[in-house]
Amino acid sequence: MTDYHATPPDALRTLPTPLALLDARRMQRNIDAMQARIDGLGVKLRPHVKTGKAIEIVRRLRAAGASGVTVSTLREAQACFADGVTDILYAVGIAAVKLERVRALREQGCALKILCDNEATARAIVEHGRAHRHRFEVWLEIDTDGHRAGLDPQGDALLAVARVLHEGGATVGGVMTHAGASYELHDDEALRAIAETERAGCVRAAERLRETGIACPNVSVGSTPTALSAGTLSGVTEVRAGVYVFQDLVMANVGVATFDDIALSVLTTVIGHQREKGWALIDAGWMALSRDRGTQGQAHDYGYGQVCALDGRPMHGYTVVAANQEHGIIARADAADADIERHLPVGTTLRILPNHACATAAQFDEYVVLDGDTLTRWPRFNGW
Amino acid sequence: MTDYHATPPDALRTLPTPLALLDARRMQRNIDAMQARIDGLGVKLRPHVKTGKAIEIVRRLRAAGASGVTVSTLREAQACFADGVTDILYAVGIAAVKLERVRALREQGCALKILCDNEATARAIVEHGRAHRHRFEVWLEIDTDGHRAGLDPQGDALLAVARVLHEGGATVGGVMTHAGASYELHDDEALRAIAETERAGCVRAAERLRETGIACPNVSVGSTPTALSAGTLSGVTEVRAGVYVFQDLVMANVGVATFDDIALSVLTTVIGHQREKGWALIDAGWMALSRDRGTQGQAHDYGYGQVCALDGRPMHGYTVVAANQEHGIIARADAADADIERHLPVGTTLRILPNHACATAAQFDEYVVLDGDTLTRWPRFNGW
Repeated sequence: MTDYHATPPDALRTLPTPLALLDARRMQRNIDAMQARIDGLGVKLRPHVKTGKAIEIVRRLRAAGASGVTVSTLREAQACFADGVTDILYAVGIAAVKLERVRALREQGCALKILCDNEATARAIVEHGRAHRHRFEVWLEIDTDGHRAGLDPQGDALLAVARVLHEGGATVGGVMTHAGASYELHDDEALRAIAETERAGCVRAAERLRETGIACPNVSVGSTPTALSAGTLSGVTEVRAGVYVFQDLVMANVGVATFDDIALSVLTTVIGHQREKGWALIDAGWMALSRDRGTQGQAHDYGYGQVCALDGRPMHGYTVVAANQEHGIIARADAADADIERHLPVGTTLRILPNHACATAAQFDEYVVLDGDTLTRWPRFNGW
Repeated sequence: MTDYHATPPDALRTLPTPLALLDARRMQRNIDAMQARIDGLGVKLRPHVKTGKAIEIVRRLRAAGASGVTVSTLREAQACFADGVTDILYAVGIAAVKLERVRALREQGCALKILCDNEATARAIVEHGRAHRHRFEVWLEIDTDGHRAGLDPQGDALLAVARVLHEGGATVGGVMTHAGASYELHDDEALRAIAETERAGCVRAAERLRETGIACPNVSVGSTPTALSAGTLSGVTEVRAGVYVFQDLVMANVGVATFDDIALSVLTTVIGHQREKGWALIDAGWMALSRDRGTQGQAHDYGYGQVCALDGRPMHGYTVVAANQEHGIIARADAADADIERHLPVGTTLRILPNHACATAAQFDEYVVLDGDTLTRWPRFNGW
């Protein structure tokens, strides 16, 4: 469904650029679609707030039916808890140096769950718990695609780590996995296959724990591509996903989004040209767009982003081909546009769709939020 | 000169990671060395504050002898002006939509100079000036290496743009160029050659303006590599440079810095391993390190950064080979370290040297500043 603004609010032309423009209607559509899909699969959705990092977005996720949230930093956890969210999974392997902040949140009533995939960390958790008479809830990270951290669902280490925690007085609350390798795929069959590998590995890990007498009530899987591709989620209790809230060009290449789904763009102004090269210079460089080149190895390389008109309409063929700190260079990928000065005159306001929404959004302290004809601002909670 | 801390402050081991660690002594050495060099060449140094973006750094640059500052955003200009700096060059081609903020600063007493490289922008500046009875000071951007924006120093457009400004009541205060292409070089001779091209082109542009009766008092050149390589600066009035304040791995590859000059690092904690792959997982992903892969095409590819021990000593061969949002993967470049768990145990605190200091620093709201044995915090002025 397209939703180009035939008459974008005048205010958009007068705001100093660059800025992070968030289309609230596209975002709401993405939120509703994922919630409906995961509801339909009969499991809970625990959205990842690392993409948006704004409390207004967390509220919309909850209003749509989310069961708790996933966070990537303790600052996100603090912001969500301050707004009334208690069921929070901190989905990065914990470091002992952070246990004090975790415990402080839990002692205030936040049901914050932490992640662990090794015995050394498990012992540190147990020790800290004993020293402060606190029972942490720990989920075990499972590796189902070899791309990052996690325990082999078939290995001995899984049981050894669980035993340290369980016998040491911590609650082993669940297992979780993230098939990040799904970002490298782009056809339905391969996506369904990795979603099934993700599901089966995580369920197998839970079963092995249960065979040893550890309840392991939660089985958590997810990534935006697998969440949008899984055929069955038998044995799974919840799905996590994050980037679907904004969508981006990487997801378009994976095949789980279209340009019209992408809710985040960088608003920028044309500040000059190099006519003989077919370049338009814009005031959005990598500081605004981020250095993320996630589409570089994919089917379609969008440089530092896809150029769209102010109303959101894509200008096919025009991408940001290079970026300095505060300069972007727009050009056609196929051949130099000899008439670039007429097509994109100085002063033109453009939107740039991001390669990777998480990275681009992170370059900003706030969003300018476009909801129909109204503009508002939502602050982000950056940092750790 | 090496300055590893045999006994780094205990507090460094207890701070929640990741964080941006700034070694104030290394930074001061870099500041003093560049100031002495440019003083020795008989011109002014107008350092770029886009790298550090912290008022404490601006104060040290001024104390060392800087003449004004260069900024990449109006927010930087506002922060510097609020601290008493009036001589400020905003070194990104201006967009008309920003003229009101520029004028507001100038009317408060800030001698803010703006940049222009085309007739359309020149007309917008003149119009805004007429409408508000304000005389802007405009510098013309000159292209000396074809890598970005700017006017050809030999072309007709240079004179046409200057004429629009001059006749329209704006002050043409100078010409400036930035040989960003110098970042791609790595031998002394090539660096000296591009420094000379930068100098000669910019001086030529000023001479042509003067021949038409426009005074053009300022001739501004610079980039860290050319500033550290220029043999003569005849005709130049000032040098701009920024990244030298922190230095980074890109500059090490260019050959104008060593590891021991690099003042910025990301402090991180080992959170796990994948033993059979030779991986150590750390809690600094691209959100902390940035997505900048500036060393990818250089002589030595440092992945997402060079690993150092807590005391600053480089662990040669170990780099961050991959990064997710909040996870980094450390491995040896040559062969898997079968003993990675013993070499980098869970809980180890490490420093990661950045590819590109400007990009990595921008991922943080503040620095933790190490000055001998004391630790303090300096906030950054991010955003636009």
